Order: sequence, then structure tokens, then C-alpha cells
Amino acid sequence: MSKNFSFELLENDGDARAGIFRTPHGEIPTPIFAPVGTQATVKSLTPAHLHEINANLILANTYHLYLRPGDELISELGGLHKFMSWPNPILTDSGGFQVFSLGGINKIDDEGVTFKSHIDGAKHRFTPEKAIAIQENLGADIIMAFDECSEPYDQAYSEKAMQRTHNWAQRCVQAKTRQDQALFGIVQGGIFPELRQRSAEFIASLDLPGNAIGGLSVGETKEEMHTIIEVVNAILPVNKPRYLMGVGTPEDLINGVMRGIDIFDCVLPTRLARHKAAFTRNGRLNLGNAKHAHSTQPIDAMCTCYTCQNFSRAYIRHLIAAKELLSATLISIHNLHMLIDLAQEIRQAIIEKCFHTFAPTYLLALSNL
Amino acid sequence: MSKNFSFELLENDGDARAGIFRTPHGEIPTPIFAPVGTQATVKSLTPAHLHEINANLILANTYHLYLRPGDELISELGGLHKFMSWPNPILTDSGGFQVFSLGGINKIDDEGVTFKSHIDGAKHRFTPEKAIAIQENLGADIIMAFDECSEPYDQAYSEKAMQRTHNWAQRCVQAKTRQDQALFGIVQGGIFPELRQRSAEFIASLDLPGNAIGGLSVGETKEEMHTIIEVVNAILPVNKPRYLMGVGTPEDLINGVMRGIDIFDCVLPTRLARHKAAFTRNGRLNLGNAKHAHSTQPIDAMCTCYTCQNFSRAYIRHLIAAKELLSATLISIHNLHMLIDLAQEIRQAIIEKCFHTFAPTYLLALSNL
Repeated sequence: MSKNFSFELLENDGDARAGIFRTPHGEIPTPIFAPVGTQATVKSLTPAHLHEINANLILANTYHLYLRPGDELISELGGLHKFMSWPNPILTDSGGFQVFSLGGINKIDDEGVTFKSHIDGAKHRFTPEKAIAIQENLGADIIMAFDECSEPYDQAYSEKAMQRTHNWAQRCVQAKTRQDQALFGIVQGGIFPELRQRSAEFIASLDLPGNAIGGLSVGETKEEMHTIIEVVNAILPVNKPRYLMGVGTPEDLINGVMRGIDIFDCVLPTRLARHKAAFTRNGRLNLGNAKHAHSTQPIDAMCTCYTCQNFSRAYIRHLIAAKELLSATLISIHNLHMLIDLAQEIRQAIIEKCFHTFAPTYLLALSNL
Repeated sequence: MSKNFSFELLENDGDARAGIFRTPHGEIPTPIFAPVGTQATVKSLTPAHLHEINANLILANTYHLYLRPGDELISELGGLHKFMSWPNPILTDSGGFQVFSLGGINKIDDEGVTFKSHIDGAKHRFTPEKAIAIQENLGADIIMAFDECSEPYDQAYSEKAMQRTHNWAQRCVQAKTRQDQALFGIVQGGIFPELRQRSAEFIASLDLPGNAIGGLSVGETKEEMHTIIEVVNAILPVNKPRYLMGVGTPEDLINGVMRGIDIFDCVLPTRLARHKAAFTRNGRLNLGNAKHAHSTQPIDAMCTCYTCQNFSRAYIRHLIAAKELLSATLISIHNLHMLIDLAQEIRQAIIEKCFHTFAPTYLLALSNL
């Protein structure tokens, strides 16, 4: 690993690990949950809110920022950290997932992907080299290899997409020029353990500073997801961070860490918030529900976030009924705080060698509501 | 004035005054600009944001809160301060303006007004006694007499509405029971100086702890507004706060203070923010404009608010183009900060006997852009 990046493992409890990933914009304690700021903003929150809930690593989206406002503009304005006023580490995905899920696909070939913008239908082309060039303009600390996301139950397509992903990963390594960015490879292969095994072996062989598991949480069962994580993490090197892309309920964090995952991200906490739903230590709550109309209780009685320290469920329900923007902000603060806090609790439990008892207890409480 | 409230005049510069209005939830330094939290939330901002921009007095809306979530619910939950987590002074209007502008009017008579809810069309009736009962349930520090807003250029109707407003103000005084709320009377009379004069004399005769001017900023010219303020303030007692309802551009603050106004409120700063527009010391700015796309400048180079200290016009323009909620939050912080800060600058200028030079200089700059 270059002088700009290092990964130190502090402790483990079974396959669960506590570590520190060092980047040019600071240390990332792992396990960690990274809030998603798709368009260079974590929806409805200011960076000050994010600091208050101890957010550290933030995600931003290559596909979205390339289309609007443009990666060259962000580069001209000093890069993503300055643009969105986030001084801590940032990770950008490669745009692969969005090209395949949002962009109308015109053509996929071994060279790259031609797609239509979901904004105005204009034609664009991403290649591995282009994805790296965009991410170098954005300037995040962690950047991702360009990958192809297959339909996870289609074995033939999953194999083809996996091989292309491997080829593209090699080209991303070649294309990369900046030394202050860590490129992570992405393991693909759908729900097929033998494909995932081959993919993990190939991606591990690239000896990148970190590795990710892509193509999960896209419709497969939790059991299938857990099996794939186990198969892949048995192969990915222990001494490098492992990032489970796009995954992030409280249950997923515990189940992922248990299987050796270090980094998580997900839009769920902020998306749920905009749809009235809050995480609690006893499961999920719909705050739009009439039963909360008279409740003087906070969302979660054990929570120390700004929302739970200051507002009742009745008030938040009123904001939802009145279609007030503040409801999304208050629930987002709570939901993100809860996942960030959970990752910190998990980390402490690992350091104290207590994660093996913490995990089942927490999972049990989550199923209480 | 009761022991719960007092108004102290510290200094004046011409008709402009600097003072302190003391309430059970703290001192209100005047002149002051009060952000509007129609539905018990200043749109897109947390109370923490409001503390950061030194907000003190906040407005909330009787008509809206009566309909949703209901004043009895708010009372049951401990009152408005607790409900919306605002420990500083709150003012509720009487609902008069909204009943006449939003509610479909069924019937106005000398007893009260029957109207339809703008939410579900349900029939409701407000009387002066009802408006006070609701405001006592809400529990704001300053409450307003129930008034009738006329079409300002219709002299016959303006006179009739004014007389009713006077009658209703007397009934509000009778109906009021709480000692920890200050009832302000409202001067009406359209754009007609002779009506305004009679109204000011009547309202002043009620000897209430504060007086307001209603029915302005509803379509009349600035000159007409200034004339009415002068006519009314020549009559309203000097030793009580004067509140100009629903008025609040930077120009209006200066022109109002110059004519003896102490308290302002307006939805404009937050409404403009949701429509891409920002106040600056050199006039108004449309941040959605393409010319800001590459601008590394803050909204206002002299501004010390969180938004101007951390974000470029280019970033805010990007948020607007991407329809991100954060744009409303960031511009609202700036717009409110600017008016609250301006009121503080005005106050300091009055204390230093410099308002007469500050006012024309500031007004000139505002017309620069």
C-alpha cells in the first residue's frame, strides 16, 4: 500500500475485525457505516449535521456527478471535498451500478457501456478509463473500479459480466494516475458461489489497497447474501479493508461484520426518512402512523441523537402530516446516527472481544417490535 | 403592563428606537426580525439552525395549528414551546389573516367567521373568544387579537372591517385568562389615512402591552405603506412595542424602523429560499441562474452565516438543479441570518445614534445589483 494509505487491524472477535484505514483526509475507524451523498449532498442534511452524528466516510456518486454538475466543473472548483464542504474521507463509486440501473443501456461491449442519461436522454459512454478519469476529477480518497452488474440469478450473464469486470479492473489499475486515491476492486458473480470464488481470487490477485463485494442487496435472499459474503471473504486478504457495497440495515451491519466486512454504505437511512420510517433498537417504526399522534416519546428512548433529545413522535408525525421538510431532516439525523453509532458499538465490542455476545443480543432486540 | 412583560426603550435616533421587550421566555431586543414557523417549524430548518443565526422571537400560526395537529393536542403535549422545541419567545397570530386569505369564507358576521378548512373543506367557526382560547392552548408569549382583513382599496369595506376589528379586540381582552401571555391589538383600515387614524386611536385606548399594524404588504405601494405607518405610529404610544405584521424585506426593515416600528415578521426569507432566491447586501440574487455555475463566491462575500462560510454559489446552484432539499436549507439559513443580522446592525446603529446615516447607505447598496 502507498504511503498515503494503510490499513491496521487492531483486534478481532471471530471473523469480525476492528481496524483503522488511513487516508489523505483522515483515519477511517472500521467497521464503519458511510452515509450516501449521491449528488454531493446527503439528502436533507448539512455537513454540520453529519459532523454532529460523527459521520466520517461519505459516499458520492460518479454517474450522477458526471452528468450534473460535471466532474470537470467539480475539479475546477477544487474537487469534491471542497465543493460539498466535507473535509473527511470521501468514497466515489465507479458509476457502474447506476449506468446499469438508471441509464438506458444502448450497448455493452468489452470496451465499455453506451447509455442514455436519465436526466435528458443524451447519449454517453463509460469505459474503465473514463470512470477513472471522472473519479480523478472528483478527487475522492477511495475510488472504485468500473464493474458490470449482472442479473444475479442469471448464471451465464453473471459469468460474462464477471469476466468483463475483471478485465475492466485491470484497465482501471492501468488508467489510474493519482497517488492520493486508493482504488478498490469489486468482486462480482451474482448468487453463484463458484463464480464469486473465482472473482474473489482474481480481484485479490490485483493486490489493491482494498476490496469490495458488489452485486448484492439487489433482490437475493439474506441467506444467499450471507453465503456469498462468506465465500468471498474466505479468499479476500485479511490485511485489507473489505467493503460491502450498498448494504445497510442494522441487521445487515451485524451480519456483515460477523462475516468479516469492514465498510458499509446505503441510501436506506435517508430514503426511509423521506418515507416516514425510522430505525429503532426494537425494529422499524412508521412515524406517519396515527398511533403516534399523542406520543410524547422520542423515536428511540435509548438514542442520544439531536432528534431524540429534542422532539416527540407526535411532533414528527405532525411534520409528516403537514408535509414539512423538517421531518426528513429529523428522521435522517436519527437513522444515520443509529447506524453510525451501531458501527461504533460493534467496533468497541470487537475490541473488547464481546462481539460474539453483542451480535445475537442486538439482533434479537431488532426483531421485537 | 403585568409583571410578566415590560418594554424598555434604551435609545432612539429620530423615530427609530432600540429597546427590550421582556417576556416569560426571555428578552426580545428590538428592533427584531422574527422568522415564521407557520406549522410549528421554520421551513427546512432545525431549532439548532435558528439558534445559530441568533433567532429569538419566532412566529407560529393559529389557523394552521388549530386545523393540524390541533391546539388541544399541542396543549396536552405541553404547549408550543415544548412541542417545537423552541425555548425562546414565540408569537402566534390570531388566525384572522389566514381565515380570510386561505379559508373559503362561508359567512362573516359581527359574532365571528365561518370558513372551510383549506385542507379538507370541513366547516369551522372562529370568534374572538375562540381565537383567544386556541392561542391560550398554544401558549405563545405574545398573542394577537382576532381581526378582519379587508380589501385594502375598498373604503366602505375597510371601515366596516375596522369597526368589527375594534369590537373583536375588546372581546379578546375580555376573553383572555392567562397572565403569562401579552395580547397585542391590531390596527386596520386599509390604505385610508383617516380610517387608520381612528383605528390607531381606538387600539391605543385599549392600553394593551403592545400594538400591531395589520393589513399592510397586501398589494398596496411602498409609498402607501410608509404613509400608513407614519399616520399610525404618530398615535400608537411610544412606550409600547409596535409590530408591523407580515413585512420583511431588508428595505422594509430599514423603512419600518425609520418610522418607529420595533417588530417584523415575514415568510419571504424562507419562501424565497425554496424558490432559489437569496438576499445580499447588494440586492436579490437568483441562484438558479446559469451564470453562477462556475462561481466560487459565497452568496454574499460579507456574510458570516454558515452557508456563506462553507459553500460556493456554484454548489448551491448545483443543489437547485439537482432538486436537492439542502438548497432550501442553505438559502434559508442565509436569508434569515441576513435579516436577523440587519435588525441587530440597525439596533446597534440606533444605540450609537448613527441610524440616520446607516439607513440611506444600506438602502443605496441594496439597489446596486
